[in-house]
Amino acid sequence: MQVETDIGHTGVVGFLKGAKPGPTVMLRADMDALPVTEKVDVPFKSTIVTKYMGEDVGVMHACGHDTHVAMLMGTAEVLAAVKNQLHGNIMFVFQPAEEGAPEGEEGGAELMLKQGIFKKYKPEVAFGLHIMSSLNSGQIGYRSGPIMASADTFDITVNGKQTHGSAPWNGVDPIPAAAQIVTGVNHIVSRQIDITKEPAIVSFGKIDGGVRDNIIPDSVNMIGTIRNFDMDNREQIFDKIKTTATHIAMASGTKADVKINKGYPVTINNPALTAQMLPTLRDVAGKDVAGKDNVIEVPKLTASEDFSFYAQEVPGLFIFLGATPVGQDASKAAYNHSPYFYVDESSFKVGTKALSQLAVDYLAMKSK
Amino acid sequence: MQVETDIGHTGVVGFLKGAKPGPTVMLRADMDALPVTEKVDVPFKSTIVTKYMGEDVGVMHACGHDTHVAMLMGTAEVLAAVKNQLHGNIMFVFQPAEEGAPEGEEGGAELMLKQGIFKKYKPEVAFGLHIMSSLNSGQIGYRSGPIMASADTFDITVNGKQTHGSAPWNGVDPIPAAAQIVTGVNHIVSRQIDITKEPAIVSFGKIDGGVRDNIIPDSVNMIGTIRNFDMDNREQIFDKIKTTATHIAMASGTKADVKINKGYPVTINNPALTAQMLPTLRDVAGKDVAGKDNVIEVPKLTASEDFSFYAQEVPGLFIFLGATPVGQDASKAAYNHSPYFYVDESSFKVGTKALSQLAVDYLAMKSK
Amino acid sequence: MQVETDIGHTGVVGFLKGAKPGPTVMLRADMDALPVTEKVDVPFKSTIVTKYMGEDVGVMHACGHDTHVAMLMGTAEVLAAVKNQLHGNIMFVFQPAEEGAPEGEEGGAELMLKQGIFKKYKPEVAFGLHIMSSLNSGQIGYRSGPIMASADTFDITVNGKQTHGSAPWNGVDPIPAAAQIVTGVNHIVSRQIDITKEPAIVSFGKIDGGVRDNIIPDSVNMIGTIRNFDMDNREQIFDKIKTTATHIAMASGTKADVKINKGYPVTINNPALTAQMLPTLRDVAGKDVAGKDNVIEVPKLTASEDFSFYAQEVPGLFIFLGATPVGQDASKAAYNHSPYFYVDESSFKVGTKALSQLAVDYLAMKSK
Amino acid sequence: MQVETDIGHTGVVGFLKGAKPGPTVMLRADMDALPVTEKVDVPFKSTIVTKYMGEDVGVMHACGHDTHVAMLMGTAEVLAAVKNQLHGNIMFVFQPAEEGAPEGEEGGAELMLKQGIFKKYKPEVAFGLHIMSSLNSGQIGYRSGPIMASADTFDITVNGKQTHGSAPWNGVDPIPAAAQIVTGVNHIVSRQIDITKEPAIVSFGKIDGGVRDNIIPDSVNMIGTIRNFDMDNREQIFDKIKTTATHIAMASGTKADVKINKGYPVTINNPALTAQMLPTLRDVAGKDVAGKDNVIEVPKLTASEDFSFYAQEVPGLFIFLGATPVGQDASKAAYNHSPYFYVDESSFKVGTKALSQLAVDYLAMKSK
Repeated sequence: MQVETDIGHTGVVGFLKGAKPGPTVMLRADMDALPVTEKVDVPFKSTIVTKYMGEDVGVMHACGHDTHVAMLMGTAEVLAAVKNQLHGNIMFVFQPAEEGAPEGEEGGAELMLKQGIFKKYKPEVAFGLHIMSSLNSGQIGYRSGPIMASADTFDITVNGKQTHGSAPWNGVDPIPAAAQIVTGVNHIVSRQIDITKEPAIVSFGKIDGGVRDNIIPDSVNMIGTIRNFDMDNREQIFDKIKTTATHIAMASGTKADVKINKGYPVTINNPALTAQMLPTLRDVAGKDVAGKDNVIEVPKLTASEDFSFYAQEVPGLFIFLGATPVGQDASKAAYNHSPYFYVDESSFKVGTKALSQLAVDYLAMKSK
Repeated sequence: MQVETDIGHTGVVGFLKGAKPGPTVMLRADMDALPVTEKVDVPFKSTIVTKYMGEDVGVMHACGHDTHVAMLMGTAEVLAAVKNQLHGNIMFVFQPAEEGAPEGEEGGAELMLKQGIFKKYKPEVAFGLHIMSSLNSGQIGYRSGPIMASADTFDITVNGKQTHGSAPWNGVDPIPAAAQIVTGVNHIVSRQIDITKEPAIVSFGKIDGGVRDNIIPDSVNMIGTIRNFDMDNREQIFDKIKTTATHIAMASGTKADVKINKGYPVTINNPALTAQMLPTLRDVAGKDVAGKDNVIEVPKLTASEDFSFYAQEVPGLFIFLGATPVGQDASKAAYNHSPYFYVDESSFKVGTKALSQLAVDYLAMKSK
Repeated sequence: MQVETDIGHTGVVGFLKGAKPGPTVMLRADMDALPVTEKVDVPFKSTIVTKYMGEDVGVMHACGHDTHVAMLMGTAEVLAAVKNQLHGNIMFVFQPAEEGAPEGEEGGAELMLKQGIFKKYKPEVAFGLHIMSSLNSGQIGYRSGPIMASADTFDITVNGKQTHGSAPWNGVDPIPAAAQIVTGVNHIVSRQIDITKEPAIVSFGKIDGGVRDNIIPDSVNMIGTIRNFDMDNREQIFDKIKTTATHIAMASGTKADVKINKGYPVTINNPALTAQMLPTLRDVAGKDVAGKDNVIEVPKLTASEDFSFYAQEVPGLFIFLGATPVGQDASKAAYNHSPYFYVDESSFKVGTKALSQLAVDYLAMKSK
Repeated sequence: MQVETDIGHTGVVGFLKGAKPGPTVMLRADMDALPVTEKVDVPFKSTIVTKYMGEDVGVMHACGHDTHVAMLMGTAEVLAAVKNQLHGNIMFVFQPAEEGAPEGEEGGAELMLKQGIFKKYKPEVAFGLHIMSSLNSGQIGYRSGPIMASADTFDITVNGKQTHGSAPWNGVDPIPAAAQIVTGVNHIVSRQIDITKEPAIVSFGKIDGGVRDNIIPDSVNMIGTIRNFDMDNREQIFDKIKTTATHIAMASGTKADVKINKGYPVTINNPALTAQMLPTLRDVAGKDVAGKDNVIEVPKLTASEDFSFYAQEVPGLFIFLGATPVGQDASKAAYNHSPYFYVDESSFKVGTKALSQLAVDYLAMKSK
């Protein structure tokens, strides 16, 4: 196993050369934790504290990336042990900053790609998984096509001209303009985008302007989030937000400054690869005690993933791994990012087996 | 008396030269009737019928312009009898089409001015009156400065692209754009115009687009009226309606075609002339039986008058003459334009005296 | 074959009893034509003329229901010939008024069900097909779950109080209220409905109020269409339209009268039945000359179908049958409802075979 | 002179009994300063510093209330000297907190009235003046009827239910509701209030909700100001803001909490009293060097005054006194409340004379 460190700041790439010629399969684990104070009473409860937004906050693996690392390490052991039988190679990617790089820095999948890991190792397909408390241990969730949303943000400042509230005509009032922009932007999804193709969500999260009841402010700022499951819809929505805000502002003499901040693309499971590997997943997960298939098709998630960057480069398959103990209602489990997030470790076997078998089976199929 | 006919289609101008040198005073009566079927039982009830919007409708002097003609004829007699004492001249204007010329034709005060009556007779001031059922016989209503509104109309067509209601993204929907324009235009008066200077009113009277529940139409048409008491506000509102509609339309990819149709300007009583002639009006009207002054300051009227065109050229004074019999509650009388509009003829004496005396006194003051 | 006529006005139900015991399969063809003047030059071009909205209009099978009848008749012949081998029975439904009953009348699938055809014949499953010019002859389109939308309409009248446009405060203006309702209703899809579950569309098709520029009207009427692919979303949207319109109207002193007119439900292909019968469809349709599967998964259609009523009662499967000659670009063919709609008759064989085989295979599977 | 102190916290009332019987005239000076750091270089520049909103700020008579006190003291001297000739009495009111009492406290005119100063001294009329840099020294500004606006504030909180921005249907979004309330409230002035009677202004000064782009907040808060020149309009607007916000909120499932905080009423100069005392003002102010009348009719001011409370109890007359040196353009002078506000002391003579003469003449007229 050849290992490179310090890629994408703290990322690690391992490369396992199989004995027989063949393509390279990439397996990925993300590694970063979250500024959440752990509240579950486990022996290995996090004791790390950090400064976050000016306050002391605990740091915990509230999204379970530690389990991803554990399972990918396990997978590396498994595959290293059988490398003589592999018709190709395995690329192990341990990636930091999936939850976002610090403000103003680059990081995550995008940075590792930028630093050339795909150019160097030339993987043919990419597999990844995410631990998920809304499924039970033993279950694997999958979906062909778009599975997680793109997540982008917008920032609109409506600039008017400050004046006294008793004489609005002496200035240019940005508050009604901002209000009409909120309304106008809400018409994009309802009117202008084909949501029978894929859904789209545009939400304002903050609106803020003015300090006193009797002073009409100079400006109003609004920020929000954009979620898509279709890359073409996504670009259309960027354009339409700009057009809508710009012209509604001009209608009353204000000026809108609109910024779109691109986040992660849509995570799309390649349909052919998904269909091809589904039998492997079914083999790995089997059936539950009631005889129901442990591999289940999950609905689209409006959350986002930077695995999407890898899946833009090569066919990708991203799956969810159940983490709530069998017998408990997974729909009521503390969700990912909660201080009560808890992982049943029995799921590790399933995850490790899934990653290993996806790699082995893929290479085997290609060797025929 | 020198008389010219057929000016402004059917208008008449009389010119009475006084014996002594001095300026010319203009007195005006409008003459036209309305397509309203008279319902008051008087011996001289109108029997004329016309076609109006495809139907037979009666024609009556529902705005009392016949009384204006009668009083100005009486005034002409009075003044002709004293012409040897007049320090100047009188110009009598009998004007058609105050209620508006037929669609597509010119008419009224604007046309008579265009045909040169002021260039020819050079009046120095203009006086006019209007009979009014909301005042009692004997009363004269006046107001310095703006007394009646300008009345203009707008016509906005929002053009989108027709499509099936089940797939709005395949077309461009003009209905939400039109809705947002209604909203945007309502912000002009509330935000952008100094209504402490003079009030302004912008109202939509009609909105119309589409024929079926499941077809998004190509366009929506909206028409409305604009009233002002300040000529600068008026021009500002024209501009702001255009800007508002144009940009709100563009915000969602539609296109607004905006037309402003100018009607009558603000009727403004010249403050100096009003102050100067107020004693004359008080002399003429005297006091009522309760000892209250018969000359009263009236609020601004949102109706409009083409006397305003004369008052744009020379200082003007336009007054209201009460027509509801003393003892009746004038605030409950059938209003002007009603089929029940009724004029107490005793008011003619007051009106005739007012017009005569305004002319005589004005010329006398100027001769000193 | 037992045949009943005059059900649901002109509908016909045939019942074929198989030799062996087993359940009943329903097969359905709709029969009605459309007020469209045929413009395709075929020997059997329609010569029928009717009065429609006061005008003479041709009547043609612009949605190809004649082909449905032809294929179901063929299917009846085929199945009658093999009735000795059938492990169960076939119910043939020839249904009128799928395109809607005349205003104020009942009709179509809903009426036939109301008249008890399912209670009498007790089908276990229902199959139907629709000829479709956007697919090529030989192709069969299918989709598991929701395949066609529900189609309902709304009718909102905003009642204010008429007044002159120059004095809006003397009345209650319904135009801005209607405008704000358009805006408010557009927020339902963008904010209040989970469109990641299934998309939803709410469109206004008509807005109409007022007749003159200077009269604020008594009321504004708006009508529109509602499309859903989820029955729970549908009920939520009905409620939300009512709440939105009612309260926005009250906000400015107007009153909204909101009516929801229920049309056809969502057409949902039972996922288990779809999965079960997909091999049959693949057998019937085979592959095209290029070796591509002739059975293709189609996107959701925002059009609606009253087959949905049957599929509410028993598991249903509704498929699309290609009608545009091989070699022509089906995406450019005259669409259903066009005066140029044209059907390649070679598709009849595929349709007849599909219906026959679905029935035979279903009964065979159940007999095991 | 009888003097009472500590009324309305630090207020003072003096009562001067004239030698002859007659009514009582009230004269008022307000006394409070403002948290503004003086920037004019005068020998008596303020050196006082206070804590204001957590910071050290200078305190200056930026609205010239010190000059009001000086002039009313002078007036007291003048009138005391002639008390033997007075046909009645003078009530001198030195009032604190015209600029507003500290948050949560009562104060100003309202408190002094509440403590019974009118019940005790029974003034028949009230006179007051305000120094004004937008007029030149020597000038007196007056206006019959409404001269200064009422100033009230509103506070609207729209309560929804927080949720993630990627799934708005899981919560209730207050931002679009707030936006529609801004729009709806702007229709009150444009549609629902008779602004030909008196203008009205409703302005939002602040809108604030949410902290992050991807979290839809629980609530949005909006505050603003309401200005009226008509007490009936004022009450109507209070009601309409409540109705508008409440119902628009309900339309999308949010809930609006609306508070109206009443400030000062409209300052209305009694028309009869104004007409009666205008000759006195003209006598006092005379003409300027160019021969122009120094008493001028001023437009309505959208600022407010708690003199209005006195003028609700008895007929009142409130005038403006020019303070910018003759020869300077008063329209460009630093306005009241500016750190550069400056008063030409020659104006004191005019102000003192005006107050004295108003009192003397009023009593004299009443004695006839």
